[in-house]
Amino acid sequence: MTGKKLSGAGLRGQSAGETKLCTVGKSGSGLTYCGYDVADLTENATFEEVAYLLFNGELPNVDQLAAYKAELKSMRDLPNELKDALKHIPADAHPMDVMRTGCSFLGNLEPEVDFTQQNKAANRLLAAFPAIMCYWYRFSHEGVEIDCNTDEDSMGGHFLKLLSGETPSELHRKVMDVSLILYAEHEFNASTFTARVCASTLSDMFSCVTGAIGTLRGPLHGGANEAAMDMIQTFKSPADAKEKMAGMLARKEKIMGFGHAIYSESDPRNVIIKAWSEKLAKEYGDSSLYDISVACEEFMWDTKKLFCNADFFHASAYYFMGIPTKLFTPIFVCSRVTGWAAHVMEQRVNNRIIRPSADYIGAEPRAVQPISER
Amino acid sequence: MTGKKLSGAGLRGQSAGETKLCTVGKSGSGLTYCGYDVADLTENATFEEVAYLLFNGELPNVDQLAAYKAELKSMRDLPNELKDALKHIPADAHPMDVMRTGCSFLGNLEPEVDFTQQNKAANRLLAAFPAIMCYWYRFSHEGVEIDCNTDEDSMGGHFLKLLSGETPSELHRKVMDVSLILYAEHEFNASTFTARVCASTLSDMFSCVTGAIGTLRGPLHGGANEAAMDMIQTFKSPADAKEKMAGMLARKEKIMGFGHAIYSESDPRNVIIKAWSEKLAKEYGDSSLYDISVACEEFMWDTKKLFCNADFFHASAYYFMGIPTKLFTPIFVCSRVTGWAAHVMEQRVNNRIIRPSADYIGAEPRAVQPISER
Repeated sequence: MTGKKLSGAGLRGQSAGETKLCTVGKSGSGLTYCGYDVADLTENATFEEVAYLLFNGELPNVDQLAAYKAELKSMRDLPNELKDALKHIPADAHPMDVMRTGCSFLGNLEPEVDFTQQNKAANRLLAAFPAIMCYWYRFSHEGVEIDCNTDEDSMGGHFLKLLSGETPSELHRKVMDVSLILYAEHEFNASTFTARVCASTLSDMFSCVTGAIGTLRGPLHGGANEAAMDMIQTFKSPADAKEKMAGMLARKEKIMGFGHAIYSESDPRNVIIKAWSEKLAKEYGDSSLYDISVACEEFMWDTKKLFCNADFFHASAYYFMGIPTKLFTPIFVCSRVTGWAAHVMEQRVNNRIIRPSADYIGAEPRAVQPISER
Repeated sequence: MTGKKLSGAGLRGQSAGETKLCTVGKSGSGLTYCGYDVADLTENATFEEVAYLLFNGELPNVDQLAAYKAELKSMRDLPNELKDALKHIPADAHPMDVMRTGCSFLGNLEPEVDFTQQNKAANRLLAAFPAIMCYWYRFSHEGVEIDCNTDEDSMGGHFLKLLSGETPSELHRKVMDVSLILYAEHEFNASTFTARVCASTLSDMFSCVTGAIGTLRGPLHGGANEAAMDMIQTFKSPADAKEKMAGMLARKEKIMGFGHAIYSESDPRNVIIKAWSEKLAKEYGDSSLYDISVACEEFMWDTKKLFCNADFFHASAYYFMGIPTKLFTPIFVCSRVTGWAAHVMEQRVNNRIIRPSADYIGAEPRAVQPISER
C-alpha cells in the first residue's frame, strides 16, 4: 500500500499528468496557452478567442468567433431561482463563497447530464459568472436588482457594465479583456488540480468548477491582488512605501504580490498589466497609486531580488477602473473558469481516477476500550 | 519545470503525504481509524464516538461523549435562508448537487472565520447534513416542510426519523449507526484528496467539504451502492440473478459493488454490513433481496474471483430500511464528512500548497495569426 515516497511535500515538481493546454516557466517563453505566448494573445486576440482556444485547441476564425460570442451572450442571464438564492446571501458573506454557491446552485437547475454537454456547461458558467457576482453584490450592497443582460459585446465590458450600471470606456474594456486573458490558465495550479481530481471520478462540470473556486479562495492561492491593494492603500507616497515596506521586512511580515512558486526570474504577466495600469493612471488623473506601486516593485527588487507577480499591478489597475477590492478574486474566477473547464475536458479524454496513497504515521493497532473505562 | 515522471497514472500507489487517521489494506487489519479496527468500532462504539475520534485522535469518555452529542444535537436545525434556497431546488435535481449546494450555502451564512473554528464548522456540517438532505427531499417530493429537529439521540436515528417522520426501530438505528461508521474514513481516496488539495491553499472548511462532495458525486467514486441497488432490483430470484449476471459478463457490462482499487482479497466492511442486511431481511419479512444479493456474491466470486465491496450489501440493507435509492450517496456524505474534515484539520497542521507539475504534450510555440487569415 505504501508507494514510492515523493521527494517534496505538496507534490512540488512532481508530474501528476499530461496537458496540451499550457506551459509555465519554460525557457524562452514564460507562459503559453496551447502554444501561444500570453503576451501575443493579449496583443492580437480577445478573451473570447482565448476561451475558444482553450476549449477547442485552436483559435477561432471570424465566423466561429461571431457564433461563439453570440452563444455566450445568450447565456448571460440567471434563472429566477438562482437570483432568489443570491438575494438570501448577506452583504458580509465572503464573495468567493458567493461564487462557489452560485456555481453549485446553477448545477441543480441546469445539470450537465452527460459529457456531450460539457462545452455548453463550461460556456454557461463562463457567461453567467459576471452576473452571479454582480447580482449578489449590487443587491446586497446597494439594494438594486440588476438586469443581468447588457448590450456590451465582450465579457470584460459586460462585467464592467453590470458592476457600475454605466457604459465602460474603450480603455477599461481593453484592460479588463487583457486581465481576463492573463488569468485564464496556469497549468496544474492547486485549483486546477482540484478540478482534475474531481473530474477523475467522472463527476460533472459544475462540481469540478465549484471545487476549484473553493480552492482558489484560500489565501495561498487567490487573493494576492486583494492583499496587495490593502497594502498599497496604506502608503501615502513612493517614499512612504519604501519606508513602510522596510519596516514590514524587518518585522518579517508577509508581503503579497511578489515572487512565484514556479517562475524564478520574473512573471511574464507583470510587464503586461503594469503597462496597462500606467495608461489607466493617466486616464484616472491621479497616478499616485501607480507611482507607489512602482516604488514597491523597485524596493522589493533592490532589497530582496523579488519580482512582481501577475497580481501586484492588477491591484492598481482594478482600482483605477473602480472595482471594489473584495471582487478582485471573483474576477479571477470569471477568467480561470476557462482553464478549469479545459482541464476537466482534457482529464476526461484519458482518465484514471486520481487516488494517491499516504504514509501512515499514526497509532499502532489498538483495541476499543469500554467507554466506562476510558 | 518538468518533474520526476510518476510511474502510474492517477498517482496510484504514490504517496502524496502523511496521515495519522487511517490505514487501508494493511496486513492483519483491513481498515483502521486512528489505530482501531473498523469491525471493533462497529461492535464497541457508536458513530458519534468515531466522529470524536477522527476529530480529536482519541475516543471520548462518558462525559466527553455526552457533551459532544449535546453539541451536535444543538446544531441540527437549518437557517431559514438555507431552507428557502433548498425549496428552490427541483425534485429532479441530482441529490448530490443538493448536498454540495447546501454545504456551500451554509458557508455563506456561518463562515469558518479562522481555523480556531474548525471543529465547530465540522460539527455543524455533520449535524446539519441529514436535515439538508431530508428537508429538500421531503419538500420537493412530498410537499412537506419538515421540522429539522427530532428527539432521536443518535445521528443515524435522527436521519431515519427526518426521512420518514416515524420513530425508527432499535434495529434500524443500530444498522444506520454501523453504516455511518463503515463509510466514515478511507485514507487518500479521491474526495478526501480533493479536500486536502483545497485545504492546502488555506481555504475554509466549507470549501473543502463542498469540493469533496462534488468529487464523491462521480460514478467512479460514490454511487456504487445505488448502481448495485438498480441492478439487484431487476433480478427476480437467486437463479435469475446468476443467469442475468452471466449475460452481463458476456456482454462485458460493468457490474458495480465488486472489487476495490486498494483491497486485493476482500473488503473488510462487507462481512459487517452483510450480517446486518441479513438481520434486516428477517425483520422485513421478505428476504428475497438479501437472498438475491448472496447469489450475486457467490456468482462473482465463483466466476471472476471478485469480492463484494462495502457498497454491495449496503444496497439491500438500505432498501430494507425504506431508504430511497437516490439518497444512498448523500448518506455517504453524512458519514464521510467526518473523514474529510479530519483530513482538512490534519493538512493544516503541517501544510504546503499541493501544486504538482504536468508533462507538456501540446503544440509547439506558435504566433497568433490575424483572425482574418485563420
